[in-house]
Amino acid sequence: MNISDLTGSCGQWLSCPNTDYSNIVISSRIRLARNLNNFNFMPKISDEDKINVAEEVASALNSTGKGNEFQFFDLENLSKRERSILMERHLISRELIENTGRRGVAFNDDESLSVMINEEDHIRLQSLRGGFSLQQAYETIDKLDDQLAGILDYAYDPELGYLTSCPTNVGTGIRVSVMMHLPALVMTRSIEKAFRAIHDLRLAVRGFYGEGTEALGEIYQISNQITLGRSEQELIDDLKAVIEELAVYETRAREKLITNDRFRLEDRVWRSYATLKNARVLFPDEAMQLLSGIRLGMDMKILPSITPEMLNKIFLFSQPAHLQQIIKEDLKPKERDIARANYVREQFKDI
Amino acid sequence: MNISDLTGSCGQWLSCPNTDYSNIVISSRIRLARNLNNFNFMPKISDEDKINVAEEVASALNSTGKGNEFQFFDLENLSKRERSILMERHLISRELIENTGRRGVAFNDDESLSVMINEEDHIRLQSLRGGFSLQQAYETIDKLDDQLAGILDYAYDPELGYLTSCPTNVGTGIRVSVMMHLPALVMTRSIEKAFRAIHDLRLAVRGFYGEGTEALGEIYQISNQITLGRSEQELIDDLKAVIEELAVYETRAREKLITNDRFRLEDRVWRSYATLKNARVLFPDEAMQLLSGIRLGMDMKILPSITPEMLNKIFLFSQPAHLQQIIKEDLKPKERDIARANYVREQFKDI
Repeated sequence: MNISDLTGSCGQWLSCPNTDYSNIVISSRIRLARNLNNFNFMPKISDEDKINVAEEVASALNSTGKGNEFQFFDLENLSKRERSILMERHLISRELIENTGRRGVAFNDDESLSVMINEEDHIRLQSLRGGFSLQQAYETIDKLDDQLAGILDYAYDPELGYLTSCPTNVGTGIRVSVMMHLPALVMTRSIEKAFRAIHDLRLAVRGFYGEGTEALGEIYQISNQITLGRSEQELIDDLKAVIEELAVYETRAREKLITNDRFRLEDRVWRSYATLKNARVLFPDEAMQLLSGIRLGMDMKILPSITPEMLNKIFLFSQPAHLQQIIKEDLKPKERDIARANYVREQFKDI
Repeated sequence: MNISDLTGSCGQWLSCPNTDYSNIVISSRIRLARNLNNFNFMPKISDEDKINVAEEVASALNSTGKGNEFQFFDLENLSKRERSILMERHLISRELIENTGRRGVAFNDDESLSVMINEEDHIRLQSLRGGFSLQQAYETIDKLDDQLAGILDYAYDPELGYLTSCPTNVGTGIRVSVMMHLPALVMTRSIEKAFRAIHDLRLAVRGFYGEGTEALGEIYQISNQITLGRSEQELIDDLKAVIEELAVYETRAREKLITNDRFRLEDRVWRSYATLKNARVLFPDEAMQLLSGIRLGMDMKILPSITPEMLNKIFLFSQPAHLQQIIKEDLKPKERDIARANYVREQFKDI
């Protein structure tokens, strides 16, 4: 298998399973940070030990047995475009790309379970699933974590819990996060108010590509800030409650739009549709914003012929690396904007 | 005949005759300001004399004979919407609407020849024709002016020429103006430069609705500033030369766009098309700007199925009063934006 094989489909996290609030909660993610005893942590690790860590982890993953058939990718052997494809699929982080030395990622067939090796910590386990599926994501990752713990020598302190490179991850080493589509809260100018209402719970609100990025396409990533002093299940339950609350706010805002501002709502949806179907030049942020309008129109039954699967595919394949993979050519940003418009127009041809 | 009969068609000035630069010069207009001896000029005229002036002018117009069958409209008998329809058709001015007392307008069947009575001067003759047709407009209005001069006692000074309310019109009393569509000069950011190049000739550049209005939809009105010291024909020839120069600049800018920036040009055209075909709420200025994109696309053969006649009709009927006339209802601005979107969408249905 190589990276270009991936671009025939989307990962499981874009497959739109039928969960609660699946029109608002796009995906659910759980990440665990783990490190190995007997090796320096990442900031101080030698190039040789990076290789040793990578080999230990790979060997452990291979012995976790059935159901977890992992594909391994060594970052040093991947082209720039292949690395970007993995990032656009949320399988690796920018930090993993920017590190040096032996590092890589392993993931299963539907990309729902992945392991970054030698990123900020020796091991970053990730379970990423479509819809509002935190519990299922946790069960999957917890099982893998238990299997690995039986093979690897995790850095663990009986009092503090799991030890990590960055103190904010010490304890459970868990990050629980959910990607939400909140266009009606944005359109009714009540998004800040909604976030203020959940502020006390020490959650982080971030953009589409995580820390320090903007909320493109009205997609927000909500995650826990603390990892210490509460159990994994408690942290998941805390976040779940908040996500449900936000989903209710968003649902109410959508109802409000339909009742008070139907023409404005329909106008936005139809303009988004029209522009994506006709533009000859499409900027990346603009495409995200227009696709957000389409997603809203689909959810509100204004555009009934569009399915979430179609939309997620367009969404993923409008990203720069996927776009270049389709036409098998490296493009300058200006050329990409034209290629993006061509690709999207082709997808909307019969819609 | 009443005003609502007008709204079955456009005036001759929107009929797109085949003239030089008819893809750039939308219409040509000549206006003559005249006043009568034996009456105070407008700022000081009594209400009774307004009636006398109106009756003298109407009687004179009636006796100008065949080919000039005028319809008369007394402003005092017209509703607000009917007055606005006349203004949107460029048959009357805002000033005529805002005046008090007896005042009105007379115009012929195809609306190419009109006479405002008791506007800024006792008489304002106008010849307004589609395309680049200044000479034809002048011949028509000159003939009518000669006929009226044989009947009415014009205020005329052998040294100064025609006397008018505002000193800027004294002399010939003529204003020669042309409406130009200059989107490529705007898109290539060379419109200011083009206007600076013609600045010395003492011409005025104005927006779509004349003095003090904005250049909506990239349509500019170019006219002479001086009326004294040169003959009518000289003023017309001066303006003609400038219009031809501007038309050449615009043509070159269009060629430059096609050569250097074809995707941007096509993108603008297709987005305009898409939005007009799909919007549910359409603001007036935005509609003008989008129709400008369509006009450019039509001229550049990007949208070959659109004709200038169709476009001009949509252009005229998207104006507030025409819009309300179609649905025979008075609407608030917000409701008009919805009605405008509905009307335009209907027109673009099969395009």
